Amino acid sequence: MRPLKALISLDEALTIAMDLVRPVDRTESVGLLDAMGRVVAEDVRASIDVPLADRAAMDGYAVLARDTFRSGKFKPVVLQRVETLYASGVPTKRVTAGRCTEVATGTTLPAGADAVVMVEDTEREGDLVKVYNPVHPGENVSRRGEDLERGSLVVRSGEVLTPAKVGAIAAVGLDHVRVYAKPRVAILTTGDEVVPPGRPIRPGQVYDINAFTMSSIVQLNGGRPLLRGRVPDRLEALRAAIRKAIAADLVVFSGGSSVGEKDMIIDVLRDMGDLLFHGIAVKPGKPTVLGRVDGKPVFGMPGYPTSCLSNCYMLLAPMLRRIARLPSPVEKVVEAPLAKRLVSVIGRVEFHTVRLVGGVAMPAYKESGSITSMAHADGYIEIPANVDLIEKGDTVRVVLF
Amino acid sequence: MRPLKALISLDEALTIAMDLVRPVDRTESVGLLDAMGRVVAEDVRASIDVPLADRAAMDGYAVLARDTFRSGKFKPVVLQRVETLYASGVPTKRVTAGRCTEVATGTTLPAGADAVVMVEDTEREGDLVKVYNPVHPGENVSRRGEDLERGSLVVRSGEVLTPAKVGAIAAVGLDHVRVYAKPRVAILTTGDEVVPPGRPIRPGQVYDINAFTMSSIVQLNGGRPLLRGRVPDRLEALRAAIRKAIAADLVVFSGGSSVGEKDMIIDVLRDMGDLLFHGIAVKPGKPTVLGRVDGKPVFGMPGYPTSCLSNCYMLLAPMLRRIARLPSPVEKVVEAPLAKRLVSVIGRVEFHTVRLVGGVAMPAYKESGSITSMAHADGYIEIPANVDLIEKGDTVRVVLF
Repeated sequence: MRPLKALISLDEALTIAMDLVRPVDRTESVGLLDAMGRVVAEDVRASIDVPLADRAAMDGYAVLARDTFRSGKFKPVVLQRVETLYASGVPTKRVTAGRCTEVATGTTLPAGADAVVMVEDTEREGDLVKVYNPVHPGENVSRRGEDLERGSLVVRSGEVLTPAKVGAIAAVGLDHVRVYAKPRVAILTTGDEVVPPGRPIRPGQVYDINAFTMSSIVQLNGGRPLLRGRVPDRLEALRAAIRKAIAADLVVFSGGSSVGEKDMIIDVLRDMGDLLFHGIAVKPGKPTVLGRVDGKPVFGMPGYPTSCLSNCYMLLAPMLRRIARLPSPVEKVVEAPLAKRLVSVIGRVEFHTVRLVGGVAMPAYKESGSITSMAHADGYIEIPANVDLIEKGDTVRVVLF
Repeated sequence: MRPLKALISLDEALTIAMDLVRPVDRTESVGLLDAMGRVVAEDVRASIDVPLADRAAMDGYAVLARDTFRSGKFKPVVLQRVETLYASGVPTKRVTAGRCTEVATGTTLPAGADAVVMVEDTEREGDLVKVYNPVHPGENVSRRGEDLERGSLVVRSGEVLTPAKVGAIAAVGLDHVRVYAKPRVAILTTGDEVVPPGRPIRPGQVYDINAFTMSSIVQLNGGRPLLRGRVPDRLEALRAAIRKAIAADLVVFSGGSSVGEKDMIIDVLRDMGDLLFHGIAVKPGKPTVLGRVDGKPVFGMPGYPTSCLSNCYMLLAPMLRRIARLPSPVEKVVEAPLAKRLVSVIGRVEFHTVRLVGGVAMPAYKESGSITSMAHADGYIEIPANVDLIEKGDTVRVVLF
């Protein structure tokens, strides 16, 4: 067994990790119902005008504006209705002086008409329509191409699709859009003692937690987890597993928490590519290995669930978002007084999980092997490397899960 | 055509809408890979102790603590190694006075041993192990059940699954979890002029935008959109469509933006159930109808894309989250000076979309028929009903999309 040495700082680890990844170039076409939250991979331009033709923006009467100029609240102008259209109707009659066409919101404007009088400003008796308010040319009319002109940009490559952007793509008649592929993350489990949930367990064995926490993190950050199962703790098996998994954008090992297993991963990474670091000055999360094989990042995550998950938040999530071309997530942060004194070690960053109880941040951290430290916590606080003590009652910044 | 009257305030509309929905009772079992973000529908208790047995929390040597009490940096105690275990190994030998077993992190503790000396505090020559640091009983040992005792609560009914909570379920050996079903939202399109994207279009027609913006909102808020296509603008067709769609948790109509179509929906709602309101004092979003059929909410959303989407954010999203048992979303808010004066109408709430350009909020709103008003905006500001003017340079609160 080789003890870990030459720890690097969390900041250095993050810099090395981020330098290792490039935004994905693969694209795929998705239907609009699957497009929400995806990253657009091409400039989408309008191949039609939206609206397709001048149309009524109100229910009312399509008129020649100049016919209404002399109307007023107590001296209506009377026009002759020549046609009635619902939104779907296509006009057949031209509107000339002294005439009008009844329209609904969205109706294509009849030839000749240049404005719409709102129904609220009129009174109809048979085919005679009294207009009580003047309109100017263009009033209550949506001009052809006013929303999107043919050839104009609907969504730009690199934009993340929101409901409104999905709507804009539908508006120009497209039912699919080209988006960047989700980063694929191969998740491999080491440790002969690790058993998948759903199977019986014996003393000396533990259930595989990390494959599922990591899959959840991958999903939350725009990636696609590929569970590759358990790899026997032998050099040749590790090598074969990496050779196969490296088709993904990123490979993550976890499970084995012993220095012996880490040594094996270190040896394999040195042999197949580069070892970039092993050991980070952070708690939890110290025994973390990062290497590069065929230009792809290969992580050896700590086996301990809290250590593994903490590193997934700190390192894996930002890497994935960079590959996926997603912006940083918005952190949910609250400030609260600390319920009891916390001591930390100078020279390493420490993360402490906390529960919020009556507005107070209560430390929830047990030890890095404990999943409940995180599962039963509301968030975490970060103690920088140059701080060794936070007093009871000090205000801390809690990042919520 | 009947003009809209008797507008209610946005607050009243929201109160009526929220009173109409109840948290969903249907549940389903999902695999852990699909569990992230779902709402747990039962208290999950541990059927095993985690850890299953006392285990080493460090790489090192399992010892009797009292054997180490007299050790120190310059006067090691020497112990006899009787066995070497990797994490997966099950101990076969008892540790007695003067003896030790080599263990890796996670190894089940051998009988007799009550502490682990870290490998860093030892030196080994053959089977002789020099210990340079005393340990107390229990040191570097994870006790059986320390993380989760058999019978204890792993996740509580009603909790939203985070990566750590998914991990906690895996930790007790479960590969599935019972969650509340996602609310089903039937989305129907009215308006004979509305054409699904992907098909050719003629003058007088428009592409269906709202079905896709609404589906995106439904997905974002924990629901499952069910696209039911276009319903002909006839009373009997509307009635039949509602009868079929009402199996969902919520029914939403959109498309037809004319008062005539809204009238038809109003008549059908009165006929089949209750009409709760028609017309909200809000811009965009005024011509909105809400009714109840078989105890289920039935919305008639405005046909105009911005009006429809704005109401989806303001009314549909909170209703869905209540049905889905999800907490309110965290709003992403920035403050910025307004780039130019905005006038509003007293008596109604107005939402104005804005783009953030060089830290300044630039109004992006065109008109409620325009999808680009929202698609090309970064967020929106709300002007309350009792405010009629915001001056250029005033600080506004921009809720980001």
